[in-house]
Amino acid sequence: MTSIFTRIINGELPSYKIQEDEHTFSILALDQVNLGHTLVIPKLEIDSFMDLPEPYYSAVFTNAKIIAQAIQKATQCPRVGTIIAGFEVPHFHYHLIPAWSIPDLNFARAQRKTPEEMTEIQNKIISFL
Amino acid sequence: MTSIFTRIINGELPSYKIQEDEHTFSILALDQVNLGHTLVIPKLEIDSFMDLPEPYYSAVFTNAKIIAQAIQKATQCPRVGTIIAGFEVPHFHYHLIPAWSIPDLNFARAQRKTPEEMTEIQNKIISFL
Repeated sequence: MTSIFTRIINGELPSYKIQEDEHTFSILALDQVNLGHTLVIPKLEIDSFMDLPEPYYSAVFTNAKIIAQAIQKATQCPRVGTIIAGFEVPHFHYHLIPAWSIPDLNFARAQRKTPEEMTEIQNKIISFL
Repeated sequence: MTSIFTRIINGELPSYKIQEDEHTFSILALDQVNLGHTLVIPKLEIDSFMDLPEPYYSAVFTNAKIIAQAIQKATQCPRVGTIIAGFEVPHFHYHLIPAWSIPDLNFARAQRKTPEEMTEIQNKIISFL
């Protein structure tokens, strides 16, 4: 089965792309916990981070650090929180969420944003990469 | 200022230790979101993961993968969730939380366990490392 993320990586589905290299692909989350919420996804369809081999595993966390710095600059958030949950899409993805307090790190807060809001924050994050 | 984690690493405060090597120190969280909740902490007192240099940064995530596998075996949880929040102790720590559903990944659930429960899960996790 091809995951929704593999289909996005293959260009079969649209996304707001933040970053791409040989091993990872990063996009704005479809539902945003806070505006700027980004997923870093390995280009290997593995369900759990515990099973993800190198160099994909380290590439996710190395790129996440760089992207989190850009999210912080773009949003002026005090912290960038991160979450791995893994209960929905069976393709590991690392959530980077601009956060102003601990309760911000809650998927129940996630909501769809307008294309204008998504494009604006996408461009802003990319400008700090 | 010396963080509570540096004091634990230096042996000035007690903890339920799970793992230690040159760059990281892992302990059971004082308040457990679910029993088995572990913190992987770099042996360098840096507030944000975004500022943590190598080799500490990669050491945290490399060891987290191994410890998460042991937590899963010890608790039989379907997933190990991870969180970086960073609003309380100003010394980066990576939460590994045995999880049965997304709402499990919520710090409001954290509670103190008995020494007997802590020692039992500590020994069980270590036995799978």
